[in-house]
Amino acid sequence: MIRVGVFGATGYAGYELVQLLRGHPNVRLVFATSEQSAGGRLCDAYPCFDSLDLVRAEDAPLDEVDCVFCSLPHGASMGTVQRARRAGVRVIDLSADFRLATPDLYREWYRVSHEAPELLAGAVYGLPELHRDRIRAAGLVANPGCYPTSVILGCYPLARTGLLADGHVIADAKSGVSGAGRSPSLTTHFCEANENLSPYSVGHVHRHVPEMEQELARAAGRPVHVTFVPHLVPVNRGMLTTLYVCVPPEHDLAGLISLYREAYGAEPLVRVLPEGKVATMRWAEQTDRCVLSLHSAGRPGEFVIISAIDNLGKGAAGQAVQNMNLMFGLPETAGLRP
Amino acid sequence: MIRVGVFGATGYAGYELVQLLRGHPNVRLVFATSEQSAGGRLCDAYPCFDSLDLVRAEDAPLDEVDCVFCSLPHGASMGTVQRARRAGVRVIDLSADFRLATPDLYREWYRVSHEAPELLAGAVYGLPELHRDRIRAAGLVANPGCYPTSVILGCYPLARTGLLADGHVIADAKSGVSGAGRSPSLTTHFCEANENLSPYSVGHVHRHVPEMEQELARAAGRPVHVTFVPHLVPVNRGMLTTLYVCVPPEHDLAGLISLYREAYGAEPLVRVLPEGKVATMRWAEQTDRCVLSLHSAGRPGEFVIISAIDNLGKGAAGQAVQNMNLMFGLPETAGLRP
Amino acid sequence: MIRVGVFGATGYAGYELVQLLRGHPNVRLVFATSEQSAGGRLCDAYPCFDSLDLVRAEDAPLDEVDCVFCSLPHGASMGTVQRARRAGVRVIDLSADFRLATPDLYREWYRVSHEAPELLAGAVYGLPELHRDRIRAAGLVANPGCYPTSVILGCYPLARTGLLADGHVIADAKSGVSGAGRSPSLTTHFCEANENLSPYSVGHVHRHVPEMEQELARAAGRPVHVTFVPHLVPVNRGMLTTLYVCVPPEHDLAGLISLYREAYGAEPLVRVLPEGKVATMRWAEQTDRCVLSLHSAGRPGEFVIISAIDNLGKGAAGQAVQNMNLMFGLPETAGLRP
Amino acid sequence: MIRVGVFGATGYAGYELVQLLRGHPNVRLVFATSEQSAGGRLCDAYPCFDSLDLVRAEDAPLDEVDCVFCSLPHGASMGTVQRARRAGVRVIDLSADFRLATPDLYREWYRVSHEAPELLAGAVYGLPELHRDRIRAAGLVANPGCYPTSVILGCYPLARTGLLADGHVIADAKSGVSGAGRSPSLTTHFCEANENLSPYSVGHVHRHVPEMEQELARAAGRPVHVTFVPHLVPVNRGMLTTLYVCVPPEHDLAGLISLYREAYGAEPLVRVLPEGKVATMRWAEQTDRCVLSLHSAGRPGEFVIISAIDNLGKGAAGQAVQNMNLMFGLPETAGLRP
Repeated sequence: MIRVGVFGATGYAGYELVQLLRGHPNVRLVFATSEQSAGGRLCDAYPCFDSLDLVRAEDAPLDEVDCVFCSLPHGASMGTVQRARRAGVRVIDLSADFRLATPDLYREWYRVSHEAPELLAGAVYGLPELHRDRIRAAGLVANPGCYPTSVILGCYPLARTGLLADGHVIADAKSGVSGAGRSPSLTTHFCEANENLSPYSVGHVHRHVPEMEQELARAAGRPVHVTFVPHLVPVNRGMLTTLYVCVPPEHDLAGLISLYREAYGAEPLVRVLPEGKVATMRWAEQTDRCVLSLHSAGRPGEFVIISAIDNLGKGAAGQAVQNMNLMFGLPETAGLRP
Repeated sequence: MIRVGVFGATGYAGYELVQLLRGHPNVRLVFATSEQSAGGRLCDAYPCFDSLDLVRAEDAPLDEVDCVFCSLPHGASMGTVQRARRAGVRVIDLSADFRLATPDLYREWYRVSHEAPELLAGAVYGLPELHRDRIRAAGLVANPGCYPTSVILGCYPLARTGLLADGHVIADAKSGVSGAGRSPSLTTHFCEANENLSPYSVGHVHRHVPEMEQELARAAGRPVHVTFVPHLVPVNRGMLTTLYVCVPPEHDLAGLISLYREAYGAEPLVRVLPEGKVATMRWAEQTDRCVLSLHSAGRPGEFVIISAIDNLGKGAAGQAVQNMNLMFGLPETAGLRP
Repeated sequence: MIRVGVFGATGYAGYELVQLLRGHPNVRLVFATSEQSAGGRLCDAYPCFDSLDLVRAEDAPLDEVDCVFCSLPHGASMGTVQRARRAGVRVIDLSADFRLATPDLYREWYRVSHEAPELLAGAVYGLPELHRDRIRAAGLVANPGCYPTSVILGCYPLARTGLLADGHVIADAKSGVSGAGRSPSLTTHFCEANENLSPYSVGHVHRHVPEMEQELARAAGRPVHVTFVPHLVPVNRGMLTTLYVCVPPEHDLAGLISLYREAYGAEPLVRVLPEGKVATMRWAEQTDRCVLSLHSAGRPGEFVIISAIDNLGKGAAGQAVQNMNLMFGLPETAGLRP
Repeated sequence: MIRVGVFGATGYAGYELVQLLRGHPNVRLVFATSEQSAGGRLCDAYPCFDSLDLVRAEDAPLDEVDCVFCSLPHGASMGTVQRARRAGVRVIDLSADFRLATPDLYREWYRVSHEAPELLAGAVYGLPELHRDRIRAAGLVANPGCYPTSVILGCYPLARTGLLADGHVIADAKSGVSGAGRSPSLTTHFCEANENLSPYSVGHVHRHVPEMEQELARAAGRPVHVTFVPHLVPVNRGMLTTLYVCVPPEHDLAGLISLYREAYGAEPLVRVLPEGKVATMRWAEQTDRCVLSLHSAGRPGEFVIISAIDNLGKGAAGQAVQNMNLMFGLPETAGLRP
């Protein structure tokens, strides 16, 4: 049994993670932290019957675990990660703190200095479909953001084969409200989000943009620009991204679908729909998979790719568990909903 | 033109009130206050194009208005009401501060001492269907709560005719989330309220209970006990209350419907559906009316009455304007959605 | 491995059932029928990747299964049940066809003659908390309706101990839209159900009433009248029933909670919340349990009981699997979400 | 008073139209048709108190009206329009039947032959911001589709000034479910649309595409290609389109916003938000306006334009009334919610 701990167990992603770990056949959950609910149990914070004790992060027994998940806000995570790594514990960090390659890039987008820059070089971007082998050996995995997961998986087969003709991707993303976290705000107030649809961080300013561009550029071997507009949608969970891409005009839809089926054929958590079917949020709801569909945009070389995930599944907790499975040599979908 | 002011213009009820007053043919809106958004305009606080200036309550020019609406939290309202009354301004108070007959009852239910007990005797409970004449002459009208409006209107024809056989009403109420106000909280977080239905303040503990019992007892001339369970429902606005009552067994459904049609036949803002039709939230949505339907419960003398309002319409702002219309001799539905 | 078949696999309850059976460790799903989608696969009817073949009911290989589930409309189910029983197959029927004790009662409420009256005497009402031993031995189990499950479990500890003082229960029930089935209708049109809440079949006319009264009367040893008002709520799945009951006045809330904890202490799929906690739909969402909370109604002997289930879980498919587990000597919660 | 009639009064757009016309100060509603509900009244088809009689289309007294609105399905509308025009009545047609310039184009996209091709030349595309003068004089106005309204208004200032650098627009549109009509279907079933987001008619195949391209090409004086992906969103009403455009790189955001404010400065029903504000569905909900916001996409010449309307307001009934106001010399926003 892998002995694990969860930092930040009462946010939406943290709670989802605890659910998956509780049902995982190869895992024993040793501790879970919550600054707000420390001293209480999980069932004090959520309508459930799980009597898991919640402790303060500083009281977490790092010497009793093989692996920890950090589901803390960016900025707050890096200190904890550093402590865990120094204790020799392998870490899967769900925050943004170790996703970007350099401290400068981090400071540019997150407006704070990185406190553990020495760990950046060894951190692996935790998208198994791109970095499976490095994840297996990693001490620190930076679990991708939900938006980057949906965008990168939607374009990766094009990027790595040099088909992103103009190095440009337009990503129109729609996210369920749980992606905004559990802390109450006017934006997430029921009456403001319900019967509404709100774009935000429009164009090229959302903090997930550099992740997407970094990984797609790595795959493509050249810069990639992602125009990115996220939208808040009145659903609890789910994410659907509509991608607009240009490829060399000799590629037709059937060819592109073949390319994607080849790229992802062996992937347990990415599914490509047959021509004519359209990915919707429902295809990925309450699962840990990514579902893709491809469509012509009506002119040679122009295509629409639709990428659906559950923002708490493949977009957060599910992918974190997938990474853990890889790191500890377990079946990749153990404990998951493929 | 009646010159009016609104205290608390950026809560949901306050904003609805401003909308109604902006469209009212006989009203000029002189000022609107908001502690949070003072110095800004209404369009800074809401997605609208209304450039109405927002001022602090203490800067409101009471000498320039004939009437003010107080849409402030209970406890916070009474001081403002007192100030307005001393300035000779007529007041419609949407808070609970002047609804209960005595300071003791207020302290018992709201856990604070009343700061303006001298005004209680003159305050009129602002349910026009019960107190129309007194409202016309009132200096201070206590606008009813949304739950009491739906419950009282649903039972009043029985109460005043002595038909509430056992002096007991069971009221199972369902409210849209806007009834909980605009301040963010975990309860009103989209992901908590959505795909959920939550009873709260179950049994006989909600602060609206004494209002209901007071008014029904006044009408019946004897004590009335209201068993009351409010539920939060994932809709923005709307309120539906299912009432369970016993009347003497010689009354049948047709007779009861006649009784209600008689009681409310002249009322511009209460509608009784014909036998066989069922009131739903939709019947009252975006209106200022109350819609009632009556049904047999399967045994002689046992009936179900369904009462639908829009919690922001007849349940708050609409009723407040109806009261203003009465106080200033305007047509009762001027500016309203009957 | 128990070999099972599902009649009616593409309705919401049928699909949920297939999901549970697919994940059940002791079950092999041999066939699934759908008149509409026969010849296709499950993934043609739902956004999923399950390639389960769908056949016509008449082509179902009854000789290859130990047990079948019938998730067909009432009236349509009894013929199939009869055929299966004649083939010696044990049956769990999710329709209403075998829930009422006599053909006359069935005709009275469902307006059709019963086609298999000879099976009624041997059919067991499939509420394990009431009839566990008889279910174990049954050839035909009539799986309860969702509303009856929530109402009966909410009152059973009172009924069987003679505490339902006046033999009367008021049940105000709220159901998610999936309870209305997957066939499109104006009632279930998104725009009609969304931002709305609709009572229907008000009072004592819903077809689930006789089930409730029959089972509560059996437990109480005397007639029980259930005043019943179901409401359609804009959520996909979930059911919450607010029950109003009278017991002899010497019983207080703590005593009642003790009584319930005793009654259900050994039950794997019924949970009684501690005093002060309130059951909401969320407590039972995506589970196969029933969650109860008890509350004072403010006067001696008057109480409110809140009963939450997932209408597709404990209210349909989950309970059906629980029944199968009992019938075949498996652990009662095998394959379920307790 | 303008005497008007409505064909198809019980669909969502037709009902909205009736609401607007009932409140319009210069209109008398002479008749309303509904094939399904003929012989009944509006309050039989909707939860309202409007006793408007519904007649069959063939019984509509065309000789008693100055103007008719046709809110019928495409294909079904053209015959009625033809009849009305022959009777000398001015027509506003909300269907697609008279929006495309030629019968060939119509047949290509709608797969039926046009039955009234003689009327096409005189039909005016009813987008007042583009064709105000021609609408004033028109006998037949083809009211635009909801998607085209949001797309065209979002791009028109660029098209007409030659700034659509590559003649290409990407339009990612999100529509409330009322846009799909009131006829029940699996797509509009509550449980299918709720907690979901579904792209459909992806790329360049939706029937609204030729309208958009026709009008933008007319404005630009050159062909325009619109890549178009509509999405069904779980809200009752509202439409938000995210547009991705390229303009010559010397244009910056401030310049573009100025251009839009100039283009629409005199428009009563188009609003351009100041830099930094983002249009959401809420900005246009229950109104007849279009709200636009502009944003940089992070590289010179690349911009995102967000266009919000209420699909039943500016996207259908509101625009139809705006057209009527123009045709009859009334104030352009009479009876509307600007």
